[in-house]
Amino acid sequence: MLAKFSRSIQALVGSRINALRRASQGNRINISGVYPPITTPFDAGSGRVSYEKLEHNLKRWYSLPFRGLVVHGSTGECVLLSADERLEIVRRVKSSLPDDKLLIVGAGQESTQATIEFATQSAKAGASAVLVVTPCFYKGRMTADALEKHFARVADESPVPVILYSVPGNTGVDLPADVAIRMSAHPNVIGMKDSGGEIAKIGYVVHKTRQYGFQVLAGSAGFLLPSLQVGAVGGVCALANTLGAEVCRLQELHEKGDAKEARNLQRRLIAPNAGVTKRFGIAGVKASMEWFGLYGGPVRSPLLPLTEGELSELRKIFTEEGF
Amino acid sequence: MLAKFSRSIQALVGSRINALRRASQGNRINISGVYPPITTPFDAGSGRVSYEKLEHNLKRWYSLPFRGLVVHGSTGECVLLSADERLEIVRRVKSSLPDDKLLIVGAGQESTQATIEFATQSAKAGASAVLVVTPCFYKGRMTADALEKHFARVADESPVPVILYSVPGNTGVDLPADVAIRMSAHPNVIGMKDSGGEIAKIGYVVHKTRQYGFQVLAGSAGFLLPSLQVGAVGGVCALANTLGAEVCRLQELHEKGDAKEARNLQRRLIAPNAGVTKRFGIAGVKASMEWFGLYGGPVRSPLLPLTEGELSELRKIFTEEGF
Amino acid sequence: MLAKFSRSIQALVGSRINALRRASQGNRINISGVYPPITTPFDAGSGRVSYEKLEHNLKRWYSLPFRGLVVHGSTGECVLLSADERLEIVRRVKSSLPDDKLLIVGAGQESTQATIEFATQSAKAGASAVLVVTPCFYKGRMTADALEKHFARVADESPVPVILYSVPGNTGVDLPADVAIRMSAHPNVIGMKDSGGEIAKIGYVVHKTRQYGFQVLAGSAGFLLPSLQVGAVGGVCALANTLGAEVCRLQELHEKGDAKEARNLQRRLIAPNAGVTKRFGIAGVKASMEWFGLYGGPVRSPLLPLTEGELSELRKIFTEEGF
Amino acid sequence: MLAKFSRSIQALVGSRINALRRASQGNRINISGVYPPITTPFDAGSGRVSYEKLEHNLKRWYSLPFRGLVVHGSTGECVLLSADERLEIVRRVKSSLPDDKLLIVGAGQESTQATIEFATQSAKAGASAVLVVTPCFYKGRMTADALEKHFARVADESPVPVILYSVPGNTGVDLPADVAIRMSAHPNVIGMKDSGGEIAKIGYVVHKTRQYGFQVLAGSAGFLLPSLQVGAVGGVCALANTLGAEVCRLQELHEKGDAKEARNLQRRLIAPNAGVTKRFGIAGVKASMEWFGLYGGPVRSPLLPLTEGELSELRKIFTEEGF
Repeated sequence: MLAKFSRSIQALVGSRINALRRASQGNRINISGVYPPITTPFDAGSGRVSYEKLEHNLKRWYSLPFRGLVVHGSTGECVLLSADERLEIVRRVKSSLPDDKLLIVGAGQESTQATIEFATQSAKAGASAVLVVTPCFYKGRMTADALEKHFARVADESPVPVILYSVPGNTGVDLPADVAIRMSAHPNVIGMKDSGGEIAKIGYVVHKTRQYGFQVLAGSAGFLLPSLQVGAVGGVCALANTLGAEVCRLQELHEKGDAKEARNLQRRLIAPNAGVTKRFGIAGVKASMEWFGLYGGPVRSPLLPLTEGELSELRKIFTEEGF
Repeated sequence: MLAKFSRSIQALVGSRINALRRASQGNRINISGVYPPITTPFDAGSGRVSYEKLEHNLKRWYSLPFRGLVVHGSTGECVLLSADERLEIVRRVKSSLPDDKLLIVGAGQESTQATIEFATQSAKAGASAVLVVTPCFYKGRMTADALEKHFARVADESPVPVILYSVPGNTGVDLPADVAIRMSAHPNVIGMKDSGGEIAKIGYVVHKTRQYGFQVLAGSAGFLLPSLQVGAVGGVCALANTLGAEVCRLQELHEKGDAKEARNLQRRLIAPNAGVTKRFGIAGVKASMEWFGLYGGPVRSPLLPLTEGELSELRKIFTEEGF
Repeated sequence: MLAKFSRSIQALVGSRINALRRASQGNRINISGVYPPITTPFDAGSGRVSYEKLEHNLKRWYSLPFRGLVVHGSTGECVLLSADERLEIVRRVKSSLPDDKLLIVGAGQESTQATIEFATQSAKAGASAVLVVTPCFYKGRMTADALEKHFARVADESPVPVILYSVPGNTGVDLPADVAIRMSAHPNVIGMKDSGGEIAKIGYVVHKTRQYGFQVLAGSAGFLLPSLQVGAVGGVCALANTLGAEVCRLQELHEKGDAKEARNLQRRLIAPNAGVTKRFGIAGVKASMEWFGLYGGPVRSPLLPLTEGELSELRKIFTEEGF
Repeated sequence: MLAKFSRSIQALVGSRINALRRASQGNRINISGVYPPITTPFDAGSGRVSYEKLEHNLKRWYSLPFRGLVVHGSTGECVLLSADERLEIVRRVKSSLPDDKLLIVGAGQESTQATIEFATQSAKAGASAVLVVTPCFYKGRMTADALEKHFARVADESPVPVILYSVPGNTGVDLPADVAIRMSAHPNVIGMKDSGGEIAKIGYVVHKTRQYGFQVLAGSAGFLLPSLQVGAVGGVCALANTLGAEVCRLQELHEKGDAKEARNLQRRLIAPNAGVTKRFGIAGVKASMEWFGLYGGPVRSPLLPLTEGELSELRKIFTEEGF
């Protein structure tokens, strides 16, 4: 089975030994819990990353019972950042990160080699694990085989554990359940973030990967509770940038077995969550952050700020649910 | 608000009074529970509907704790039946139906008028309620407004309560949550069957329609438990044709609060469910029915029977999960 | 190769002999030219089919150099008609049809058997050929193999020649080029109407079917000229209901070799064509017919009439191009 | 109307004057003709860009009557190259480029600012014009308004003319005709490459932009002739990497008015073109290049090389059409 992951026997000897060594050193970190995929604050005047505003937000986020932070998820406008900005943000977050929090870094690129390089740099800069999205530009050729080879190579070489990432709404590529299941046997692949929201798929992946302790994270607060109920261990939720306490409380209620309260809270989170994802995107996340004392700030072009009408529509969605 | 549902004041006076009268007579029947969308048995030789085999299957299904049966759902090959066959099947099922079971009949047609007529005939033939799918041939014109007017007219005229039906995998039309929410205020619309499987949508519709007691049914055993957990009241599940006892047990475990057993069972049902829906369709349902002593029989053309290879693949899926 | 089209040797002997006999009797009718897929006129008061208005429109259409008429194409609201209405319309059109015009009747149903029956009835009522759309409700199962078997059975049994019909915008099923190419060898399949508009596919099908004299019709005035230029023989164009003379003139200019005038006319037709198809659908066709002295009338529910705003937008599109 | 393209009056004064000055200096270069979107040759051992092999291929391409070359189109694996590699390739091609050939460089990035920067660097490195693809990662937010603002900013700032680029098969975003039409008024936007292949859209864009001399290039050899016939001025065709002489001959036949020969050649090119695009992608282009004395070489991961079976299938497609 090992052979499945390697290009050649030669590569196998070196990299697999490394991977297995890493694994034996306890790579199977526990990633259970809630994470905000943090937004990147830009200065309203210069358009540059504002590390000051980032510190401001980090302080707030550190005060919440998150398991950690995800840097350079889709919500972080990572594809609109330069390579230097990306690394610098990782370093800054790491420098203030409390010891008990994880730092998961989005490292996926279109190229396998570039992904390996960014994963390596992220690890040096302090990443606890890397999130690797499905490549997508050549979507017609992203067969199960191509995806599997890509993830296997990255996992072979990454100094830190790999979390697979499926976000078909952005990429147009839905990571097939079978690929996730096969990859779960790789010693350096510890889990998956699924933003597609097909709950049967999430349950099936959990079911078929239990032997390897594969950990699934819901990719949205819109289906966090159902995901936990079928066996996911947590969530990476754009809405947690804004309503972090509430999203954490949802997982807590679930773990305490308070099904009724959990259900009520889950239902109230659906519309605000849709508001800051499908409906209004990152500009919606940033606008709503401002209402709660965090710094939102502008989005980078080609993304557009919300219009007045959109803003009041979003505000209405939040207030209708009591937030 | 009533006006919203009616074409004109004139139509309103007559039909709304009827609808309200029906409503006051207890139209809000409780549809909580599990239903098989029953397959239509065809004679292997003549290709005709076999009422004898139907009786055979009905006996088995009546012995299970189903809330009722759905006749002429997508799994019933309804679009491959003649109008006469459709009505005759309703009558036959009604004639043997135990008093405590509901008979829900798929009545949706492309034309609003034809839907009203078939709903009326179905009611006469014994339907407890009708399932009305979104029209779909002119999908580019099936705006929220068009769908709402269609459902409102049908609900105005149907002698029995209406259950909305969204099955985008077949129709290419996803009934928008907002349309379902607005329709929930209609006195003759009692619920919705959702086969799309977007769990956040199901939770949101439940959340926004509680005031009217709108009842949501999951359209698949693949996401029955998550649906119940966000507030659905049951499911119409193709897999219940074959594994009826297990699907009923899933809802029972949920209602008893046995979360762990429920979760385990839910997970085991996902792959067999996918096998008889997305993967192999109705031919898969019918093939699997044979293994459990029910009559499956042939599918109607243009549907094709499973190949030997597909059959053994399906069998493997069932046995791997212990069924 | 004959075997490919038949379910069994037995069926083959009978039906193929029939098919071959029909073929030898000159089934390969020449369908080159332009056809309006005629709208079905409904009485504004009763909502019934108005045969009087139909006669009015037919007179106008007969005065144009159409090759014939298509009855019960997508534009004819065929899925909103009862079986009786469908047949009666065929009979009425046939009774007044000039001898030199063809009458092509849309006969496709979800069920193979029902399609054969309607094709047979249509032939008796006067159809010169039948148009058979891809079945689509069980779209996940409409594999190349399933489509091929469906078309082959219909072609085996139809008393008049079969024209395949691909209209993915409505059906969600794109008839694969390879299926069309294989079906072109069937003696009772004479061509294809393609409304998908992928010009490379049209050219490829023409290229690979020349040996059988397979005749391709463009399914829209939006790409009639490019289709003719790659070898199509004509078009079935919703816009020809309204601008019949212009659409006929486009083919005439092409045949005369007047490339420049043809190109200019083609370009001017694109926006009005989009207006009565993708943009506003059948209600748009009917509204525009009124401006040119034809009877448009209402559409059947669930289709909606155009709003005032839509009407003036459509009118602007026509006037901007000088129509 | 100028205001439409600018963020603020201030930005307008500076950049518009620049743009208009550039325009008055003859920015409206004539881009009529055929271009290969050249593949990037990688060394089979090291995986690095092989500039030697690039020179080998360039010599061959320069000997053909191409109007120029496109560097960093989708076929160039541009998303799999580092920023340094991208610029170096532009410089190398420029250094050997004959004076009468154009060098069009793909400069589109997800970020507006990064696109402007790469366009500026490309211009310095010798680009005659830049090709700017629609951003696509945040596809749900890529409204007409967002796309228009993105293109306008890039066009305002780019030192060389801008060609819009729509390739929905890769990006999942189809550049709307109306956006292209509005952008055609910008003095620094000279045309569009359309790989979507909807011929009515191409004809419509040509029709509505004639006043500004907007130049449309077909994005594929599969629909080059139909595009020329509705008014496109040339094509950027992956197949021209391999069958450059034949693709150039197709445009030549069209221009000479030899409709029959052009049609025959167009039809023969469709299947080989599909083979190296939709069917087998870049690995197919590279494999076929080897057959004709060019260097193909490996593709970069996550792309996979063709299997033996795929290779012989591709070869069969070419030989069946006589290539």
